[in-house]
Formats: sequence, C-alpha cells, structure tokens
Amino acid sequence: MKKIGIIMGSDSDLGVVEGAIDTLKKFGAEYEVHIYSAHRTPVEASEFSKNARKNGFGAIICAAGKAAHLAGAIAANTTVPVIGIPIKSSTLDGLDALLSTVQMPGGIPVATVAIDGAKNAALLALEILAVSDEKIAQKLDDDRAENSKAVLEKNRAVEEKYNK
Amino acid sequence: MKKIGIIMGSDSDLGVVEGAIDTLKKFGAEYEVHIYSAHRTPVEASEFSKNARKNGFGAIICAAGKAAHLAGAIAANTTVPVIGIPIKSSTLDGLDALLSTVQMPGGIPVATVAIDGAKNAALLALEILAVSDEKIAQKLDDDRAENSKAVLEKNRAVEEKYNK
Amino acid sequence: MKKIGIIMGSDSDLGVVEGAIDTLKKFGAEYEVHIYSAHRTPVEASEFSKNARKNGFGAIICAAGKAAHLAGAIAANTTVPVIGIPIKSSTLDGLDALLSTVQMPGGIPVATVAIDGAKNAALLALEILAVSDEKIAQKLDDDRAENSKAVLEKNRAVEEKYNK
Amino acid sequence: MKKIGIIMGSDSDLGVVEGAIDTLKKFGAEYEVHIYSAHRTPVEASEFSKNARKNGFGAIICAAGKAAHLAGAIAANTTVPVIGIPIKSSTLDGLDALLSTVQMPGGIPVATVAIDGAKNAALLALEILAVSDEKIAQKLDDDRAENSKAVLEKNRAVEEKYNK
Amino acid sequence: MKKIGIIMGSDSDLGVVEGAIDTLKKFGAEYEVHIYSAHRTPVEASEFSKNARKNGFGAIICAAGKAAHLAGAIAANTTVPVIGIPIKSSTLDGLDALLSTVQMPGGIPVATVAIDGAKNAALLALEILAVSDEKIAQKLDDDRAENSKAVLEKNRAVEEKYNK
Amino acid sequence: MKKIGIIMGSDSDLGVVEGAIDTLKKFGAEYEVHIYSAHRTPVEASEFSKNARKNGFGAIICAAGKAAHLAGAIAANTTVPVIGIPIKSSTLDGLDALLSTVQMPGGIPVATVAIDGAKNAALLALEILAVSDEKIAQKLDDDRAENSKAVLEKNRAVEEKYNK
Amino acid sequence: MKKIGIIMGSDSDLGVVEGAIDTLKKFGAEYEVHIYSAHRTPVEASEFSKNARKNGFGAIICAAGKAAHLAGAIAANTTVPVIGIPIKSSTLDGLDALLSTVQMPGGIPVATVAIDGAKNAALLALEILAVSDEKIAQKLDDDRAENSKAVLEKNRAVEEKYNK
Amino acid sequence: MKKIGIIMGSDSDLGVVEGAIDTLKKFGAEYEVHIYSAHRTPVEASEFSKNARKNGFGAIICAAGKAAHLAGAIAANTTVPVIGIPIKSSTLDGLDALLSTVQMPGGIPVATVAIDGAKNAALLALEILAVSDEKIAQKLDDDRAENSKAVLEKNRAVEEKYNK
Repeated sequence: MKKIGIIMGSDSDLGVVEGAIDTLKKFGAEYEVHIYSAHRTPVEASEFSKNARKNGFGAIICAAGKAAHLAGAIAANTTVPVIGIPIKSSTLDGLDALLSTVQMPGGIPVATVAIDGAKNAALLALEILAVSDEKIAQKLDDDRAENSKAVLEKNRAVEEKYNK
Repeated sequence: MKKIGIIMGSDSDLGVVEGAIDTLKKFGAEYEVHIYSAHRTPVEASEFSKNARKNGFGAIICAAGKAAHLAGAIAANTTVPVIGIPIKSSTLDGLDALLSTVQMPGGIPVATVAIDGAKNAALLALEILAVSDEKIAQKLDDDRAENSKAVLEKNRAVEEKYNK
Repeated sequence: MKKIGIIMGSDSDLGVVEGAIDTLKKFGAEYEVHIYSAHRTPVEASEFSKNARKNGFGAIICAAGKAAHLAGAIAANTTVPVIGIPIKSSTLDGLDALLSTVQMPGGIPVATVAIDGAKNAALLALEILAVSDEKIAQKLDDDRAENSKAVLEKNRAVEEKYNK
Repeated sequence: MKKIGIIMGSDSDLGVVEGAIDTLKKFGAEYEVHIYSAHRTPVEASEFSKNARKNGFGAIICAAGKAAHLAGAIAANTTVPVIGIPIKSSTLDGLDALLSTVQMPGGIPVATVAIDGAKNAALLALEILAVSDEKIAQKLDDDRAENSKAVLEKNRAVEEKYNK
Repeated sequence: MKKIGIIMGSDSDLGVVEGAIDTLKKFGAEYEVHIYSAHRTPVEASEFSKNARKNGFGAIICAAGKAAHLAGAIAANTTVPVIGIPIKSSTLDGLDALLSTVQMPGGIPVATVAIDGAKNAALLALEILAVSDEKIAQKLDDDRAENSKAVLEKNRAVEEKYNK
Repeated sequence: MKKIGIIMGSDSDLGVVEGAIDTLKKFGAEYEVHIYSAHRTPVEASEFSKNARKNGFGAIICAAGKAAHLAGAIAANTTVPVIGIPIKSSTLDGLDALLSTVQMPGGIPVATVAIDGAKNAALLALEILAVSDEKIAQKLDDDRAENSKAVLEKNRAVEEKYNK
Repeated sequence: MKKIGIIMGSDSDLGVVEGAIDTLKKFGAEYEVHIYSAHRTPVEASEFSKNARKNGFGAIICAAGKAAHLAGAIAANTTVPVIGIPIKSSTLDGLDALLSTVQMPGGIPVATVAIDGAKNAALLALEILAVSDEKIAQKLDDDRAENSKAVLEKNRAVEEKYNK
Repeated sequence: MKKIGIIMGSDSDLGVVEGAIDTLKKFGAEYEVHIYSAHRTPVEASEFSKNARKNGFGAIICAAGKAAHLAGAIAANTTVPVIGIPIKSSTLDGLDALLSTVQMPGGIPVATVAIDGAKNAALLALEILAVSDEKIAQKLDDDRAENSKAVLEKNRAVEEKYNK
C-alpha cells in the first residue's frame, strides 16, 4: 500500500491538520507527517517531493495559510498527486490561502479542498489510493454508508422532536 | 488502464473543457465526455457516478459555472476521485463557481482546480492514474521536463532581447 | 392548507433553522422538519422532493452552509417553490453559502433569503401559501402591522431618551 | 389566474428583464410590466405594491442594479411574494445589487434569484402560482422534462463528437 | 441653527449611533433621534423626510445594517443632505450595508461614511451646517486642532518610550 | 453663492468627472475644476484645501482611483464638506477606490458616493449649498420632479409595449 | 548605519507595530518611532518625510488601518523607500487597509507587506539597508538559517509524535 | 552600481513587465530580465536567487499572476529585497495574485506593489539602490519634480477649459 504524506508549513497548522491524521488513522492508512516550509526550509521541502514517488507516496497533503505556497511548491517537484488544504489565519477569513492554493497556473495542478478541510483532504488521498486498491475502495464505500446512516438517525431525532 | 470521465453541466462549458480533452488526448488517455446537469438531468448524473468505479473510471472531471453543484453531486454518489473545474460565467468573475465547488462539507471531497483550469484538471486526473501506472507517471515527468525546456527557451529569447 | 417542508443539511444548522420553525409555529402553519444532506443522503433528499407536491407541500425551505447545494438539489426534483437559507459557517462569513444557493443556473430557481435569514424564509413560505389562502394573507398583514407598532414603540422610547 | 407583476427600476434593466417576460409569455401567464423607481418614483412604487393583492397579483418580480432597493421597497408594502433580480451594472460585477437585494432584515422577505437571473425569476413566479394552480404546475413539469431532453440531446452530440 | 436628524433602522443600531449623538452633543448641536425602518415603518420614514426641510433639518443621518435601504429611502423624499452609516451585522463584515448605502443610482445621492463610522457622520453633518454658520465652522476647526494636539501628545509618549 | 470645487487626481478621471461638471452647469452653480494629486502635487492639494473656506468654497468634490487618497488628503486640511468619488480603474472593479475613500478614520469625514458616481457627487454638493440657499433647494426639488416625470414617461412607453 | 523610521497613524496600531520594533531591536538596528496621522497631523507627517533622507533614514515603515493613507502620504514627500503595513481593524478584516496601501498610482511606490505583517516590514527594512551593508546582510542570512533550524526542530518533534 | 533583476513567471507577463523595463532604462539602471517559473523551472529560479547578492543584485522584481508564488519563492532563497508585481489574469481581476504575493508569512518579506504596478516596482527598486547611491536619489527626486510639473500643466489645461 502506498503511503500518504502530510506536510504543514508551520506547527500552528497542526490543530487543523489533525483532522486529516485522525481520518487516515481510522482507515488504517500508512502516512508520514512533516513540517516543511516552502519559504523557510525550501531545500527539505523540495527533497521530500522529488523523492516522493520512489519513496512510496501515493498522495501528498499540504496545509498552509496566508500566501499558501506550500502545496504548489511541493507539486512543482513531483507528479504524485498533491492535495492542498488552505488554512484560515487571522485576517481575510481564509480567502488568501484558498486563492494561493487553488489558482495554480497550467502545468502544475494542486487538488484543493475547502478552507480548513482537513478531513476531506484525507478522504481524497484515500480515494486516490483506492483507484488501484479494492480494499480502501470498500472501506470508503462503507464509510459513506455509515455517514448516511448517521445523518438519517439525526433526521429521525429531529423528526421526533419537531414533527407531531 | 482506467478511464477518465469528463462531465460538463452545459454545452456552454465546452470551450473551456476542450483544454482538458486536448491534454488527455496528447497523453493517449482513455476518456469519455458527457453533458449531464446536476439540476436538469439529475438521474443521468447520478447513474453515471454510481456506476463509475465498476465501469472502469479512475477519475471524473466535472466542469460547471455559477452555483456549480455538478462536482459535488457526482462526488456524492461515488468514491472515485472527482475533480472540479469552476467555470467563470458572466457575473462575479468565477468566484461563485469556485466557492460552490471547493467549499464541500466534510465527507464528500472534490479536488478543485483553478477557475477555468481545464488543463490542470486533466493533468491531475492523469497523476491519479499514475499512482498505479508507471507509464503515465513517466509521461507526466517527461511532460514536466518539456515544459521546463519551453520556459527556458522563452527565457533565452527574453534574455537576448532585453539583456545586453 | 398546504404544508411547509423544512430541510437542513446538517444538525449543526438547527440553531439557525429554529428561527423558521418558531415563525411557522406562531402562524399556526403545518410543517415538517427533516435533516437530509444533498451529499450524504442524496436518495432521501431526492425522494422527498420528487413527492413534495403530491404529499401536499406548498413550499420547501432548505438550509445549508459552505458549498450549499441542498436547495438546488431539492429544486432539481420538484417545481414546488424552494426557499434557500445560506448558513454562515466558520470561514468566509457566509459568502460561500450565499453564492452556492443564489447563483442557480437558468431553469431551476431557488428563492434565496439573507445569510442565516431563517425568519424571512418562513415568512416567504407563508406569503407563497397566502397567494391562495386569505387567512394566511390576513395573518401576514396583521403581523406586519404589529411589527410596525413595535418599531414605533421603540421609536418613542428612543425619542424620550434622546430628544428633549 | 393571478397576475405576475414585473417592475424594473430603470429602462436600462429592460435587456435583462425581457428574459423574464419571454418566459411568462411562453407559459401563457398574465403579467404587467412597469418602470417604477424606489427612489425617483417612490409614490407610484408604493401605490403599486399596496394594491397588488387586491389587484390580483400573485407574485411581483423586481429588477434593479447597484444599491438595488426596489424589491425591498415593494416588499415593504405588500405580503404578496416579491422576487428580486439583482442587475449587474458597470462596477462590482453585480455584487452590490445581489447584497442589496438578498440581505433583507427580518420581517420583510425578498425571494432573490441569481444576478441577471430573469428567467429563473419568471419560473419562480410561476411556481408560486402553481401552488394552487394544477395547470401551471403541469406546464412547469413539462418544461423541466423538455429541458432534460434538450440537455440529453446535447449530451448525445458531444458523445458522438468526442467519444469513439 | 438647523437641526440634525438621526434615524436608525432598528434599536440594535443604537450602540453605534450613540457615537454620533455624543459628538453632536459635544458640539452643542440641535438634533432629533428616531427609529424608523424603511421596510417596517415606510410611512413614518417617508413623512419624516418629506417634511425635513420645512421642519428645519439641515442634514439627516441614517444608520442601517444588512441590505441597508434606510438612507436611500429617506433621500428619495428630500433634497436635504442625507448621510448614511452602514452598520456591520453578524455576516459579511459590513460589506452588505456599505454597498447598499453607497452604490446609489444617479439622481438620489447618499453621503456615505465608513462602516460603523458614526462619529464621522456627525462631523459631516456639522460641516454641512458650517457652510453657512461661522460658529460651527470655528468649533470644527478647534476640534481638529485639539485632535492634532492629542495625536502629538501620544506621539511624544511613544517617542519617549521607544526612542532613546 | 458658495463655489463648488472639483478636484481630480489625474486627467484620466476626466471622463467620469465631466458627469459632475455637466450637472453643476445645468444648475447654474459656480465651480472650479483642478487636477491636483495627493501624491504628486501634495503642496498644491494642501494649499487648495487650507484656503477653501476663505476662498468661498461650500463643498469640494474629489475624484480618484486605486488607493484613492485624494478626498482624504483634501479633507485633512479643511472642514468644508469633502465629497469623494471612487473611480473604477483597470483592476478590482472600483473596490480599491471605494474602500480607500469611504473607510476614513474617525475625525476626518469624507462624504462618499457610488463608484464613478459623478452626477450624485454634484447633486450632493448642491444639496449642501441648498441648506442655506432656497433657490438651489427649489431647483433640486424641481429636478427631482422632472426625473420622476421622465421615469413615468418611460413607464408609459414600456406599459404600452408590453401590457396589452 | 542608516536609521529606520517607524510611523503609525494611531496609538491603537502599537500592538501590531511592536512586532516590527522587536525585530529591529534584535538586529541592533537604529530606529525611531513616531505617531503621525496623514489626516490629523498632516504637517508633522509631511515634515518628517521631506527631511527623511537628510536625517539619515534608509527606510520608513508606516502602519495604518481602514482607508490607510499614511504610507502613501509619507511616500509622496520622499524617495526613501516606504514600507506599508496594512492594519486590520474592526470591519472588513483588513481588506480596506490592504487595498488603500498597496494600490498606489504610478509614480509613488509603497512596498506593502501582509495585513498586520509588522515583522516582515522590519525584515524588509533591514534587507534594504543590507544592500550596502554587509554586516546586516550577514545577520539576515544567519537569521534565516536559525529560522530554518527552528522549523526543522519542530519537524522532528512532529515526526516523533505522529510517525512510528 | 548594483543590478536590478526582473523575473517573470511566464512570457504572457511581458506586456505588463515592460513598464518596469522602460522605467529602469530611462533611469540608466543596470538590469537583467529573465523568465523563471517557481513551478516549472524551480531549479533555475532557486539558483538565480541564491546567487543574487554575490552576482551584484540590489533588488529583484518578480511578476506573476494567479497563485503568484514567484516572488515568495525567490525571496525564500535570498535576503536581497524582493519586489512582487501581482499580474491580473483572466479571472478574479488580480485579487488572487495580489493575495498570493502580499500575504507572506513572517520571516520572508515580499515588497508588494499594486496589481500590474510595474512602473512602481521599478521605482521602488531604484529607491532601494538610492539608499546608498546619491546619484539615483537625485534622479528620483528630479523625476518626482517632473511628474509634479506634468500634473500642474494638465491642471492648467483643465482650468483653462472648464473655469471661466
């Protein structure tokens, strides 16, 4: 099974990123977590991504805030799918990180999820591995079914409370 | 080799979407193009996505404008990776389609690319297939190398023109 | 008397949605509350809306946040008037939900109210029923008169306090 | 059959508004078109809306640009459902008209459609009448079915062209 | 001396509006405070503004949030200068009120100040009266001088603390 | 009669500003037009505004684009009412000029009109003079009446064309 | 060694500005802190900047919020590099200050850093001095190296915690 | 005299960037123009910036559109001052490039100018060199004086045309 890389630009992103780690853990995925900054440790970031495919990574999740260049910088050095989580910081409500992550120029794609959307980043990484891994595909389908059930149970509670 | 699905919400999106088709053609990928609307043909859209995995799709590209629900609606019915292209329409400069595509709630990820970013959507789909397909991976790396070369050639032209 | 449907995408929307329920209760309207998610329970959502007219619904209120597809997904399956409440979530101050709800493509209208505008959603639903129901029309007019009176009373209090 | 009022704030809005008129004509609805400005002819605007219900109107469509107060001003004087079309003008890409129309305070709802969304405004008005008019309901359902067919025909054309 | 009218759309605006009242009080200006809503008490709002000039008002300050139509509605019925204060509410950070107040169509101006800018609204009203009232003009100039002095005193404190 | 100053930051603003000049001409107002830049001719701009009151100005209209500081810079040196016209330039659709003009800090008000709202700037200046000048007040009321008539004539044309 | 000027428009900006002062202190730079307002003390602001070069300043940092004109006003009177820090205030999340600072017209540049980006403003000022001062250049490079090390240490902590 | 580097991310930026080249030429500055992409030629971009100081560069101008990472990527590898020009592209009116350029995290400053503000980027680079180069400082002051004169001449033309 391929590994999933999780890179964040700063340890202040960890609170959000743990949502991705928890999801990967729940699915029993193999993953590696790192703090590499596109700007403050460009060499390490670049080394990681250049070797990502041969080191067995099937997807790389990158989380960064503000002028969030991390996902783009990682994607520039690998053709392993890179998933970007824009992190909301103290100004502009996450819009800066969203646009810096998603508006990539032609040639270097970044698969962007919602602002602070760590759980979906993990699920997307698993979906990517599932393209060639039946077991993960099955687990993802089971997870969807469970989620549906959970919504329907909440529905029943609400129906009981509000509908006569 | 897995197929790549390309769905657009309206034939007015075709001008942008052809950027994705051209890229897939250039890479020799197998693909299928459809017009299904999340709102006007919800049944066909849902049928397509429910059967996507067993019909051999490894990624689905969805293009839509305005309150762009197509990618989310497709993603709701499959765990095959769904890639969203927000299409710029006549008002709001693409911001509506971007937010409608990327801000998905937890549980149903959509891998969003730039507004009108059709080429990157195709490359991302290929990167996803490449996780388990060495040949595509090699082609993607070759394409990157060619792009670098093209930039460097333009660099030389500019250097000659502007630097003495 | 026709019923009013109230659907929310997640139980986290309930805090806002109760503003609509309270208003309907005050007017003695018949209503039904459900949690159906456009993405996590698409089948139930679609079933509800397909049968809405024959089940006696005269208007359907849908509340959702982020890439708020719920109202559009419900509207895709019925020609009963669908009212969308964009819910503010933790990023972007409600702008994402507003654009995802209101910017519907031609053919499938959603009657959108203000971000978190649950009370107005209920009043709009009642106005729709009132088109063919004199009693509700009268109640709405009475409510308006009461509101005017309330404003004018507050006006008097302010006048007394600030004007000599 | 109830009438549908169409009011625009300026004759410069007519280009967009004709999309609503054409739709109403196609459905054989009864309608009345007026130019009343919330700011330049407040008396006429107010007279129209105060008498709207007793003059047989079942819905009122209001189109205005910039600080688009027309829909709100009309809604302030009637409990007949008011539908707002925000019109894009030369600056801010329609955002000003959208927010001025949709962000109504509690008590006075305006059913807002997309920027320049005249066709959907007409369809919404028809949906409102259809709540108590089976024939319009049937026509709306038929129109949806035709639209689906049209999308599927375009789909076939695209499939033939792009899929081998 | 002409009076200054202060109208707010809701008593929830009072917290901000008191900044204007305090400033007028400090300058010894004559003023009247009212709560009139463009939507919930359109008659009273319209009566007030139609009679504003003959009742001795030289400027009218209007404060409202969300789809802030109050200033425009007042301005529609008088050629006494109307000053708009956009009030920040719970969503969109005041942008909706700003655009609804400032983007007035040609013919009906509203003199808009900053979001929640009550103090400046009062100063602007005083500046308007000062055009034909030397005493207020003198007081405004004195106030400016005092403000400069206050800034320069803070400057000295900061210089002492931070500069050796 | 007091004069009205019209200052623009650049001759590229003249196309918009002529809308103000034309309006003032139509009303027979006395006015003076200048190009002074807050940044490129700060001395002249400051001189003009320092002497504005004693030179007989009753209002000063300032038009500028981008980081539009002109109105604020003029207002910093006079307590004569300053009216700001934010000018739309080639990027950001006028939002930069709007926020730079309207979001003035407490103490120095700028009466801001709509982006490119030159006509309303002129009308507001006239309204300010009209506070102590019955004749202008009368002219403004007459102009309003004419505008209403013009709208109602357009209304009749539209009614004839569209209503049977 | 050239001095670095730090000017803020109001003492309420001091909390953010101290981030710049601390950085300059750490680097042993010479600096001067002032509160000058573009609007309330235009004379002092202008005097400071006119004499900045001959008083030995090599860079001037300006911090202001809302319609943040300070940096532009200072830059209008000197060709010493001016660095603008847009300060977030209570509305619009800093967007107003950012656009008012960065969107300067041609001829008068302001080197703008992130909203509330005081530390980077200080580093940029130091980089400017370092162009002709080897020692500062060396210190800046050392600081970068330390920052990299700090990130890598945090990386190790995270790796130990999350990777087996 | 130090050199000024000009780097653009794509040859499509050349139209804007020539505004910077022309300005540097006019000032007789030494400069070098290159096309390096942060994403497509990361090695060359990184090499250039690592060696910038020892190769005699005193400032580096970087122009890029969309998720404009170029300035940040260059700044990550040098403490020579980096000036960012956000380039407007076909969507979002330049806002994406502005935020991606200016919202840099603490530690790595980018001196950002206006969207498409190439001329000011060049002037800022010259101001930086002028800190230790009297001749450039003099030229900059002369240029300012000329600009003032040009504005004042336009002022005279406007005065003659519009003022009697």
